[in-house]
Amino acid sequence: MSMSEDPFVENCWYVAAWASDIKEGDKFKRVLLEKPVVIFKGESGRYIALEDRCCHRGAPLALGRIEGDCLRCMYHGMKYDHNGICVEIPGQDKISDVHRVHSYPIEERGGLLWIWMGDPDLADQQKILDFPYLSDPDWKGHTERSYLHYDANWMLIVDNLADFSHLAFVHTNTLGGSEDYASESKETVYKLEDGFRMERWHLRSAPAPFHKKVFPNGPDPVDRINDVTIRIPGVMFMETSFGPVGWNPEGDREGVIKYANCQFMTPETRSTTHFFWDYLHNYDSNIEDISASLKASLVAGFMEDKIFIEEQQKYLTQYGRFQPRGLASDRALAHYRNVWNKRLEAERLAYPSDNSPIKNAIL
Amino acid sequence: MSMSEDPFVENCWYVAAWASDIKEGDKFKRVLLEKPVVIFKGESGRYIALEDRCCHRGAPLALGRIEGDCLRCMYHGMKYDHNGICVEIPGQDKISDVHRVHSYPIEERGGLLWIWMGDPDLADQQKILDFPYLSDPDWKGHTERSYLHYDANWMLIVDNLADFSHLAFVHTNTLGGSEDYASESKETVYKLEDGFRMERWHLRSAPAPFHKKVFPNGPDPVDRINDVTIRIPGVMFMETSFGPVGWNPEGDREGVIKYANCQFMTPETRSTTHFFWDYLHNYDSNIEDISASLKASLVAGFMEDKIFIEEQQKYLTQYGRFQPRGLASDRALAHYRNVWNKRLEAERLAYPSDNSPIKNAIL
Amino acid sequence: MSMSEDPFVENCWYVAAWASDIKEGDKFKRVLLEKPVVIFKGESGRYIALEDRCCHRGAPLALGRIEGDCLRCMYHGMKYDHNGICVEIPGQDKISDVHRVHSYPIEERGGLLWIWMGDPDLADQQKILDFPYLSDPDWKGHTERSYLHYDANWMLIVDNLADFSHLAFVHTNTLGGSEDYASESKETVYKLEDGFRMERWHLRSAPAPFHKKVFPNGPDPVDRINDVTIRIPGVMFMETSFGPVGWNPEGDREGVIKYANCQFMTPETRSTTHFFWDYLHNYDSNIEDISASLKASLVAGFMEDKIFIEEQQKYLTQYGRFQPRGLASDRALAHYRNVWNKRLEAERLAYPSDNSPIKNAIL
Repeated sequence: MSMSEDPFVENCWYVAAWASDIKEGDKFKRVLLEKPVVIFKGESGRYIALEDRCCHRGAPLALGRIEGDCLRCMYHGMKYDHNGICVEIPGQDKISDVHRVHSYPIEERGGLLWIWMGDPDLADQQKILDFPYLSDPDWKGHTERSYLHYDANWMLIVDNLADFSHLAFVHTNTLGGSEDYASESKETVYKLEDGFRMERWHLRSAPAPFHKKVFPNGPDPVDRINDVTIRIPGVMFMETSFGPVGWNPEGDREGVIKYANCQFMTPETRSTTHFFWDYLHNYDSNIEDISASLKASLVAGFMEDKIFIEEQQKYLTQYGRFQPRGLASDRALAHYRNVWNKRLEAERLAYPSDNSPIKNAIL
Repeated sequence: MSMSEDPFVENCWYVAAWASDIKEGDKFKRVLLEKPVVIFKGESGRYIALEDRCCHRGAPLALGRIEGDCLRCMYHGMKYDHNGICVEIPGQDKISDVHRVHSYPIEERGGLLWIWMGDPDLADQQKILDFPYLSDPDWKGHTERSYLHYDANWMLIVDNLADFSHLAFVHTNTLGGSEDYASESKETVYKLEDGFRMERWHLRSAPAPFHKKVFPNGPDPVDRINDVTIRIPGVMFMETSFGPVGWNPEGDREGVIKYANCQFMTPETRSTTHFFWDYLHNYDSNIEDISASLKASLVAGFMEDKIFIEEQQKYLTQYGRFQPRGLASDRALAHYRNVWNKRLEAERLAYPSDNSPIKNAIL
Repeated sequence: MSMSEDPFVENCWYVAAWASDIKEGDKFKRVLLEKPVVIFKGESGRYIALEDRCCHRGAPLALGRIEGDCLRCMYHGMKYDHNGICVEIPGQDKISDVHRVHSYPIEERGGLLWIWMGDPDLADQQKILDFPYLSDPDWKGHTERSYLHYDANWMLIVDNLADFSHLAFVHTNTLGGSEDYASESKETVYKLEDGFRMERWHLRSAPAPFHKKVFPNGPDPVDRINDVTIRIPGVMFMETSFGPVGWNPEGDREGVIKYANCQFMTPETRSTTHFFWDYLHNYDSNIEDISASLKASLVAGFMEDKIFIEEQQKYLTQYGRFQPRGLASDRALAHYRNVWNKRLEAERLAYPSDNSPIKNAIL
């Protein structure tokens, strides 16, 4: 396995797609961690993810044909089973054991397809970072689960999520509410082995605009808490609650409204990112209206972020040397980058780069 | 002559254009082997091909003016004769012998313009790989000779043509006919010093769709033979015949229909290719209808190939290390790449790279 | 200051924009010398130019908010004064002196904004290359000052302007007049320490088409003089006069029409250029018609140049080694490149590259 030049931790579960992206009988191609992957549902019903390059001449298997739980390359007809092993070569009897493509472990949880891009022997399904609200019938999100494509390295999106002071300025009129959120809210950061948890209280504040829209007659002012956890590789869970001034999480939750927010950032390449998300609530009534309103508010907020994040990417890659200057609010993002870099370095040592010369290279 | 970094054999004749591409009094510019070239017809009627960069400041001569068999750069007025020698500099009496551009030998054969990109002293017109059917009045092709542009290295197109098992899967409904073409036809490969010849018989098979269309009442099943020769640099000639079961090429050709197919791949750059072709027949009647039908079928087939070939190019250049795994059907393409690489290496030794520093470089 | 890889002389005044480009209360972003810059008018009325990258995480300040003579980054709320010093960080009391962005000296002259991209301590306003006609009420230009964007290194535009023989061929029907301008006009080049001055007389010649259009009943033939000065960095002033045959600049100017032409080339990147210009006259009547006609003629002429210049750029960067071959008419451009290269080298020695490792790089 070639790892050394990869900027990605590979031995962990990434979100590859919403399960609903994979249509019966169709092939779904997507680049993940700079590797082309084809995903399909075999006729037995199982999800299968293969390297999207035929081992013969590199043709895309996504142009191929599903046969049972196999995929046939439609260039010269090689047929691969769900393990990526070639089981038929038209016009040739002998099949060598080098005639295979990589097969990626893939699992469905809560409507998401999780993929393991690294060493398959280590793919432990227990390590999938499932967000239980996605499977809980009491919690409602969008019917069409949401996806955005970013022209930016995924870490810039993690940076954004790891510093909530940006809500004050970027999202004043959507997800934030007032500029004093930056200076007057109170943040506690808990370091985790694979990320961090962060609580941020904003007391006696105006309800955020997105909340006000769906709950116009709720208490005002409110005490608001964002309780966010971000873990390797780019998985964010957040619970946000608005309640009457003085409420506390240990006590009575009368009049407290809670939202459950998940976001998943999966690198496409080192400069582009797949972004999956849902924002769930457990209201009793008007479910569809509320879901639609929340989705519209969140999309508006993400668009505000996207402008900053994609410009950052452009500036950082186009205009030479940049020495960033840290702020106190960088605690969480700094810790996150630390644990990521340690994992990356460990993989580099464990899987030295494959430098063996390529025989009969095509190009 | 700088050769060492070029991935192209230069001392051979390439197809540069169809002669009909060059309009009377007009200049035709095209990049060939990563060199900009301007082609025009001098007033004497001869074809002239010059380096499309004025020696002064690199302005394109294609923006210039034809004067007799000369071309005048319309930036500062330098005038070049058909040998690329500067014969006039406005406002300057003395002309040095460094004031010249490269002149490429160019010849017309069968409606094609052949160009010699390498050492002009070696340009032997006897070595042009003329396809005699193009000049034979008994054989009909398109009135508008055909051209396609590929976003792929030309060798990927040679690979495609050198392995006919792809007809079974890529072209089932156009040029192929059935998937058993891959497993049941019989191929013989003859190695040539500058390429290969390959015969492939498919016995007792359904006629190919393109043939059925123009010859609906012909014998069915047929014995089909593809007899293809591919030679350096990317020149393919193929004769395809369909006849009653049991016919043989040495004997009676009653009821046998033959097509004559030529394809020419000329690198534009290492990742893009000019592709010229014609597909000829010698039917007595309905000439125009048949030519149009054959052209439509072939274009449909090429489009099927183009998707695979351009995706291969993208995958091979964008997604890192790829170790191809050979098949038995790679015999012909492997031999072709061998003879190409030998020629390339021989040129590299014969024409070491020009590493002399550039004086007064413009950029 | 990192200089060593820059292909630009930095310690001089460049044109950044027309003052009218900066709208009250708005931020104007532009890349200059491969550095992103944001320009705005503070509430005090002064022009302010800052590095367009927040020192925290590189977000564009052009997305920020003007507050007095300060600009607040709207990502996490850092506020910078007109010197680029951070004066407020929401939620953080202490501000380090590394929390700052570069502030570029900027001055208005004759409707142009001049910026100093190099060492601010050396920014001497006396060195601004003001074109006095721009501020002279007797001289009229366009009401909307003109700008073009070139996909070419700015030096290719200087080359163009430094060799007037191109008027004969490129601009025969717009700014030139006849092809004998190249061979029969007489040029004198004066070397300056920071550029050159060049006089070119064309005696007993047809008036140039652009002049004929606005002065149809003027003398014909004329004696024409172009008196052009080009100085570092890419500043061209030209006076062009048409008078009756035999007139001389020291004597009677009866019947002599003079134009005042300025052009300013500022590198955006090493392969793209900002180009500002105006073409002024001091006619008494029909001012608007004449200005419009002159502008139309000049734009037509620039478009003729632009085709050559952008093709040169493409050819020089895409098609490998090019050894230019000098002409006698290259005297002026050769001297200009000499003085430029000397200045560049002097700056490289004075400001060695900052190679200190970047701490906590974002990407």
